[in-house]
Amino acid sequence: MAARQALQVHLDLLSQPCRALHILLACTRLPHTVRHVALRRGEHRTPEFTEINPMQKVPVMVDNGFILTESDAIIKYLRRARVDEYTAWHHTHTRPHAAKVFLLEVLLPAQTGSPVEAQRLVGALSQLQETLDQLESMFLRRQPFLCGDDITVADLLAVCEIMQPEGGGRDVLQDRPLLQRWKSRVQAAVGDAFDQAHAVLYALRDRRRAKL
Amino acid sequence: MAARQALQVHLDLLSQPCRALHILLACTRLPHTVRHVALRRGEHRTPEFTEINPMQKVPVMVDNGFILTESDAIIKYLRRARVDEYTAWHHTHTRPHAAKVFLLEVLLPAQTGSPVEAQRLVGALSQLQETLDQLESMFLRRQPFLCGDDITVADLLAVCEIMQPEGGGRDVLQDRPLLQRWKSRVQAAVGDAFDQAHAVLYALRDRRRAKL
Repeated sequence: MAARQALQVHLDLLSQPCRALHILLACTRLPHTVRHVALRRGEHRTPEFTEINPMQKVPVMVDNGFILTESDAIIKYLRRARVDEYTAWHHTHTRPHAAKVFLLEVLLPAQTGSPVEAQRLVGALSQLQETLDQLESMFLRRQPFLCGDDITVADLLAVCEIMQPEGGGRDVLQDRPLLQRWKSRVQAAVGDAFDQAHAVLYALRDRRRAKL
Repeated sequence: MAARQALQVHLDLLSQPCRALHILLACTRLPHTVRHVALRRGEHRTPEFTEINPMQKVPVMVDNGFILTESDAIIKYLRRARVDEYTAWHHTHTRPHAAKVFLLEVLLPAQTGSPVEAQRLVGALSQLQETLDQLESMFLRRQPFLCGDDITVADLLAVCEIMQPEGGGRDVLQDRPLLQRWKSRVQAAVGDAFDQAHAVLYALRDRRRAKL
């Protein structure tokens, strides 16, 4: 997670879209500073503010020199930033590391008829443990879901990867109560959709178990 | 809300990103049909599927002839579509109609010193009632939040507009239990951030009350 220089937002809390942005910033816990611009005192018509937004309107976001106006655009930019931060990491960590365990324990043996390559599996499991450590210590450290107080697509993408080794009968969250609780929250939030999506994976696991 | 032709997704539920997409579709209740493509049987290499996705990969989304690949892109497209549907409507309904009541009851009298224009206020309140009716009958008909089971920026934008007439001491949800329950859900979801963002509006309301 790259360090971000403090984000700045120019707001008047008597403006409805400014308040929506204010709530979003509080909930996503993005570090930021608020500059209050009192429209009723004409503070949006000062030369300093006009320099930032020639439209003389609030809200305005300034992110490392990047100036963005229109509450819709700002809110979408911020939400996307938080989720994009996880998904970029996801594709180089959670996804390949969980998938590799499944590949070594299930796919390769099924395709080649050879036994599991023990040495490679040890390496893959160790990489996966490191990724699970980081999910706990970075993304879930102070919040119930990966990107904040609410479930996002980041949680869906992550949980589906972490479930994958179950196809080979392996529960990679066995000794990880923090991630287990997160998984339960995701399941509770999406309801039946969770088990419906995993029906084929469960069937694969159960077929393999029956063969043993 | 414009009618959408049924969305089609091509999936293999043994694929992790396909499952994440499957869960998202179930939770957002977007009408869609699923075509199962069994990778283990090579169904992604048929001429028919290759026609749809020359990369021979799942998931693939087909929306009214618009073909999109890569789970990340598909998930973001679908989520954005649902929220964009509300926010487009928001800017021509919830926002102007709630804001006009505040303008007529608070801003104009404060600026001009004249009493509230009763006739215009009646018209504005009637337009706002129609908008609140539509919020109930369309967006909240079968779901707890405006865009589905989870809070989104649509709810934040809407609640901040609907709160605005409170600055003039008017609770526009007084006789609307369905919208009151939605507002409580939004408040519960965002916690203290709600009252913090509305502090200036509450102060304005209380100052006006003290003057009466």
